[in-house]
Amino acid sequence: MVLDAWNTHVQRAEKLFNNLNDVEMLKEVAPGRNRGVYLFGHLIAVHDGIPALLGVGKQNYPELNAVFINEADKSSLPVPSIGDLRTSWKKVHSDLSEGFNKLSSDEWFSAHTAVSEVDFVKEPHRNKLNIIINRTNHLSYHLGQLALIK
Amino acid sequence: MVLDAWNTHVQRAEKLFNNLNDVEMLKEVAPGRNRGVYLFGHLIAVHDGIPALLGVGKQNYPELNAVFINEADKSSLPVPSIGDLRTSWKKVHSDLSEGFNKLSSDEWFSAHTAVSEVDFVKEPHRNKLNIIINRTNHLSYHLGQLALIK
Repeated sequence: MVLDAWNTHVQRAEKLFNNLNDVEMLKEVAPGRNRGVYLFGHLIAVHDGIPALLGVGKQNYPELNAVFINEADKSSLPVPSIGDLRTSWKKVHSDLSEGFNKLSSDEWFSAHTAVSEVDFVKEPHRNKLNIIINRTNHLSYHLGQLALIK
Repeated sequence: MVLDAWNTHVQRAEKLFNNLNDVEMLKEVAPGRNRGVYLFGHLIAVHDGIPALLGVGKQNYPELNAVFINEADKSSLPVPSIGDLRTSWKKVHSDLSEGFNKLSSDEWFSAHTAVSEVDFVKEPHRNKLNIIINRTNHLSYHLGQLALIK
């Protein structure tokens, strides 16, 4: 159910980004707020970090963290082209699907890689499946904003 | 984990609505889009429908469906006062906490009340826990928009 919800929201996001042309991608979701392209890069960077947390792969584009996670939109850092981001989106989500298939049901309930063994004994909900629950809600949050561009 | 995510997002929403005064509640999340008060009523009405789906209670304010679910914002229908909505929000979420406590782990995986027995055999993910996964993502979606008001 958790993975279904993830897949549904990734598909919704993909459809939304496919429906925004490169000019619309530069629009802000509301006056003075994040642009579509920033939220696109932000979601790519955050999702690209998931395989490492699940222990099934590593980040493809660590260089995106600086501009799309550590900095707010419209920083002085150069932003990749929207075409390159569209390619990265596809690669990140195809790697995620592959990564998910590597995990057994039991492994989904094992600790994610950013929690210590000691902490996991006390907080067993800090498992791999919980990463997906949280990342799906994070995606929904930004989808609500991106829907305002059109 | 699913209920934790729900509770976290309800708390975030509550904090956000408490931080919006009645004038700010009338602001749109973006030009021409839904006002805070509409999304407030919308979330109350949707969440008020959950106990019936879980089979643990009934809707407190069925009259909110007309204005906040069936109609878009700024319809000709009269909108309840923001004060009344704040009272309804509290009642709905306190009833939900009580309702959740009535369900055993096994019952969370039983069919919700809007799915037939025949369909549930084919689609066992249409259970009570899945309602909460979907409603949490729905809440996150609108939280992302409401965050734009301040």
